[in-house]
Amino acid sequence: MSNTTRYDVTDWPVGDAFDDVGHVLNDMIAHLKRRQEEGAPGGGKPGAVIHIPPGDYRLRTQVVIDVSFLRIEGAGHGFASSSIRFNVPETQWGRLHELWPGGSRILVDLPRGDGPDVEPTDGAAFVIARDGEPRLSAIEFVGFCIDGLHFEPDGSELHPENTYTNGKTGIYAATANDSVRVNGMGFVYLEHALVMHHADALSIHDNFIAECGSCVELRGWGQASKITDNLIGAGFAGHSIYAENHGGLLVSANNVFPRGASSVHLRGVTRSSVTANRLHSFSPGMVVLDGASAENLVAANHFLRDQEPWTPFIGIGNGRDDEYGLLRVEGDGNSLIANHFSAVVAAEDVRPTGAKPVIIRIVSGTGNYVASTHVVARDRRGQARDDCFAAQVDALLSARAADDLPVIAVLVDSASVRNTVLDAGTVAQLAVDTAANAVRPTPEVGA
Amino acid sequence: MSNTTRYDVTDWPVGDAFDDVGHVLNDMIAHLKRRQEEGAPGGGKPGAVIHIPPGDYRLRTQVVIDVSFLRIEGAGHGFASSSIRFNVPETQWGRLHELWPGGSRILVDLPRGDGPDVEPTDGAAFVIARDGEPRLSAIEFVGFCIDGLHFEPDGSELHPENTYTNGKTGIYAATANDSVRVNGMGFVYLEHALVMHHADALSIHDNFIAECGSCVELRGWGQASKITDNLIGAGFAGHSIYAENHGGLLVSANNVFPRGASSVHLRGVTRSSVTANRLHSFSPGMVVLDGASAENLVAANHFLRDQEPWTPFIGIGNGRDDEYGLLRVEGDGNSLIANHFSAVVAAEDVRPTGAKPVIIRIVSGTGNYVASTHVVARDRRGQARDDCFAAQVDALLSARAADDLPVIAVLVDSASVRNTVLDAGTVAQLAVDTAANAVRPTPEVGA
Amino acid sequence: MSNTTRYDVTDWPVGDAFDDVGHVLNDMIAHLKRRQEEGAPGGGKPGAVIHIPPGDYRLRTQVVIDVSFLRIEGAGHGFASSSIRFNVPETQWGRLHELWPGGSRILVDLPRGDGPDVEPTDGAAFVIARDGEPRLSAIEFVGFCIDGLHFEPDGSELHPENTYTNGKTGIYAATANDSVRVNGMGFVYLEHALVMHHADALSIHDNFIAECGSCVELRGWGQASKITDNLIGAGFAGHSIYAENHGGLLVSANNVFPRGASSVHLRGVTRSSVTANRLHSFSPGMVVLDGASAENLVAANHFLRDQEPWTPFIGIGNGRDDEYGLLRVEGDGNSLIANHFSAVVAAEDVRPTGAKPVIIRIVSGTGNYVASTHVVARDRRGQARDDCFAAQVDALLSARAADDLPVIAVLVDSASVRNTVLDAGTVAQLAVDTAANAVRPTPEVGA
Repeated sequence: MSNTTRYDVTDWPVGDAFDDVGHVLNDMIAHLKRRQEEGAPGGGKPGAVIHIPPGDYRLRTQVVIDVSFLRIEGAGHGFASSSIRFNVPETQWGRLHELWPGGSRILVDLPRGDGPDVEPTDGAAFVIARDGEPRLSAIEFVGFCIDGLHFEPDGSELHPENTYTNGKTGIYAATANDSVRVNGMGFVYLEHALVMHHADALSIHDNFIAECGSCVELRGWGQASKITDNLIGAGFAGHSIYAENHGGLLVSANNVFPRGASSVHLRGVTRSSVTANRLHSFSPGMVVLDGASAENLVAANHFLRDQEPWTPFIGIGNGRDDEYGLLRVEGDGNSLIANHFSAVVAAEDVRPTGAKPVIIRIVSGTGNYVASTHVVARDRRGQARDDCFAAQVDALLSARAADDLPVIAVLVDSASVRNTVLDAGTVAQLAVDTAANAVRPTPEVGA
Repeated sequence: MSNTTRYDVTDWPVGDAFDDVGHVLNDMIAHLKRRQEEGAPGGGKPGAVIHIPPGDYRLRTQVVIDVSFLRIEGAGHGFASSSIRFNVPETQWGRLHELWPGGSRILVDLPRGDGPDVEPTDGAAFVIARDGEPRLSAIEFVGFCIDGLHFEPDGSELHPENTYTNGKTGIYAATANDSVRVNGMGFVYLEHALVMHHADALSIHDNFIAECGSCVELRGWGQASKITDNLIGAGFAGHSIYAENHGGLLVSANNVFPRGASSVHLRGVTRSSVTANRLHSFSPGMVVLDGASAENLVAANHFLRDQEPWTPFIGIGNGRDDEYGLLRVEGDGNSLIANHFSAVVAAEDVRPTGAKPVIIRIVSGTGNYVASTHVVARDRRGQARDDCFAAQVDALLSARAADDLPVIAVLVDSASVRNTVLDAGTVAQLAVDTAANAVRPTPEVGA
Repeated sequence: MSNTTRYDVTDWPVGDAFDDVGHVLNDMIAHLKRRQEEGAPGGGKPGAVIHIPPGDYRLRTQVVIDVSFLRIEGAGHGFASSSIRFNVPETQWGRLHELWPGGSRILVDLPRGDGPDVEPTDGAAFVIARDGEPRLSAIEFVGFCIDGLHFEPDGSELHPENTYTNGKTGIYAATANDSVRVNGMGFVYLEHALVMHHADALSIHDNFIAECGSCVELRGWGQASKITDNLIGAGFAGHSIYAENHGGLLVSANNVFPRGASSVHLRGVTRSSVTANRLHSFSPGMVVLDGASAENLVAANHFLRDQEPWTPFIGIGNGRDDEYGLLRVEGDGNSLIANHFSAVVAAEDVRPTGAKPVIIRIVSGTGNYVASTHVVARDRRGQARDDCFAAQVDALLSARAADDLPVIAVLVDSASVRNTVLDAGTVAQLAVDTAANAVRPTPEVGA
């Protein structure tokens, strides 16, 4: 066994993967590092693949990955909705075919960090960290499920399992890294699914990340990464996709569903792309570019903002009122082109009362360019507030015959000047100072 | 063996996978379900992965998947063109290196349903179906080939192998399902490749689905799914990508080639996206939004409509004339932005004779928004009608020097009003009532 | 062993994979072909999968793949930056955790072709070639690393390891092929990573192709392929993505980083798409459509052109001056819509001295359509020229506060007429003959 580069958690002589897969994985990594010390002919240190067959593996020990070229691979993303199940009375669980997520499933069973000594990595199932050089490279997470199991009371009136908080993180990269891949994974019921610091050329592709407090967080700084083709949906107070101080990030072809406080939040991000995504939220602030985010392209995205249809969460939101903007910009030189917005809000639910919801709001900065934007806004009436899947779909489909809702398509605050707004709203839908910005309203019938 | 979660069809003690892989797969599923009854510590039911090594596996028994967290995985999508081979005289087959598709290949050998008792699932190699709750979750099909083997006479003069009909389906989901994945698969010579009812958060990604009657059909209703990054091409009477009553669907980065009657057909679909696709068809009706499809975004797609170059199919089409529209809308509030259209039709082949082909046609509904649309139309002359690959490419490349063909870039029927059409055609190319719609023609030289 | 379709390079009785994996792979292919001669019941020839576990495998013999349905699969793309390591003084290598790329790594150790007898396939690790019919189908490369090890002196003053030349190619397809897949691979330090002739329905998806002279080259002719969702960056004189005489190509959702002489170069390519990519370059000519490339769509891309920040390469570029255009078109009927351009060049570095950099240049052809284009240009001042990762990110982020740099947003040469340019630059930024082209300048404040 000592020369293999293929490990399997179910046949490792140390530990019991079903009882504590973290202990087993750490032992494998230690073994791999000892083997790497010998090196391959030519001086390479090729790494390994660790297989996690389908099964339930409790993780009681945090895994620390401080070696490059390690792939951890399962055979099933295993997502199943814990949120739906936890909102079924427990007395009825007996009639359910399954109670829990499946696949190659890691059950994160770590103590919650508390008190003054809490570290950011506490509660993380997998930590990527190494001092010295070079950066860790080519670590891959493929095809397994990380399940946080339960949420916990947050002091609110929410049922504990609906709080999206439990101090648990799926994967936490603490030090600089290069060419990491997260692919085909499932994440569920974690407060933070994926937190990556200092990432270069990261690929987060084709994952299922849902029912987590926050889903993807690129922190610190980083460059040239991609978040593509994922199914993502965070909790009401968290981020679906967040990045800070990144350059050259590509966020494309994701289907981001509720209920994240934001769908895509870029802070201090420049020269990046948010293109061809489908975005759905129950709150304003779907896409936020702030912290002097500059020269980004937001193009060919579909935005749907409607209202929470599910009883346990009705009235819970991100606290932003409807003048916040569905797409909000604080920064220079951004391009917002060829996006579609559907806003479906009951007129009586608009806040502040009597206000017109704002679709695009440019708060500060100069030289932003808005073009070819289409806004459809409906007064949400007669939509079922029911909890089943069929009713959810019906909600998505049913509002099309509702009355129009008056909105501000583009609001440019007075602190922002020299923007260009073309074909993004009729005269009545624009709140833009034409003495300070270049404006061409969308033509109207007979005009 | 009884505790493994990894199965291999070639070493299972029951049945003979080469003779009837369906029998073997059903026995494995039964085994898995018995094992799940015991459950894992903690109550989970983790599922399994079933491996199908490269090989030819006849399927004489339909596989019924009524368990979550099952991945069926092969090691090769195995696509090869049966259409080309079947149109080579059989006397010449001896000179061919291969005759059939390969990879991990399922040969679907099921009896065709007939008569009054035929069920929709008849002829389906894989059926996903379970009553009760919760919905089936996280079923995955990865990396194998489903081959329908032969098409059958359809009463027309077509060679039987060119009819695209045989009553066979690759995968048929009959009941509600969540987070299913179809990834890296090959489908060939099936009347229906993939029929999914009531899908939530489905991912159909990076597959090769060609030479099938219809390729992807999302039926019933569903939400929040994605069809991304596939190579797809249906038969002349079928759908390449079809969805009905879906909300929040993302269709992005697909390369859809002929000859489907439609490239993307959305019926009763709302708040969905068709973005960044490359679409190629031999007929009008490439993208159809009907059945009150509303508030969808069709953006940054490339449309090419030219004519059937291959002898066996010349004259066979979807029966739509050139006034049908390449992109046709019946519905409200859709956005059609930043698309390119190339139409290459011999002037003498335009139907009705003497008509101008219509590129975008809005038949009914209100509030649709068309902007930044570029149409290039050529009279197809001198293009080789030959059958080899090189000639096909030549056809794609050669028409660029041909004469312009007059077209209607946008036609809005009188039943549709309050649409906005901006920079989508010159005055002469627009057939839009400016008293009922907002119109800004594309500027012209010297105007 | 004779009936298996699963091979593993580490347990094959012939050869030593660690010493020469090419010899082992060729022997496996020969074995597979002998087995295929028997055929499966029904006449199929299903192919095989060859596993390459993580490890360092020297390749001293070129692998020739002349059989369909072969998947070669590793368990790690293994990318690590050789460029960074080679630019660390060798005396300091001892402090580095790793020196070489890893994963399932092929060390290409082939003699360099020289003299009059050099063949294009010389120096290629994997050659795909077969005479006769049908075309090779469904060959798959998945999840391993091809490492060219070293670059070689090129006669310049560059350090040999920085020349991007060594006569080595990763994968070279010489004959027509169908439905080939390259997925999850790593390529590093090859003069040519991937050269594919005569490809039909090729998929190059989710790879890491960097520090290679050229990355993706589709040569000869081909159709209906996709290059999607890759991380790509070529050398200063090479191509990141190049295609010639292709129709219906989809280039989407790639993150293309420096330093390629071009990011995407299409020659004689028609009816193809370049959409939703993030493109970064240190030189003009980022996207070039030439050789009569026609009717292509370039939409929703983010272009960033700034300047080489890394000491070893400062002053090395593609030789094009700033009037060449970041997006350059020689051809008819192309659509350039909804793109963002950031140009960050120190005013004193602009060439010719005193010129205004050109963003979009249409050199020849007719009927091109440019719309909704946003250009942000900055005078690059005070940007750190340092070599570490943090400094690179800082360079990406820091220039946002710099002064504006005057540019020509669109230049149409007099040889090109009847183009349409809408909302792509202010009057002062356009160099377009309005007597020969249709022009609507971007509106300005107060205009």
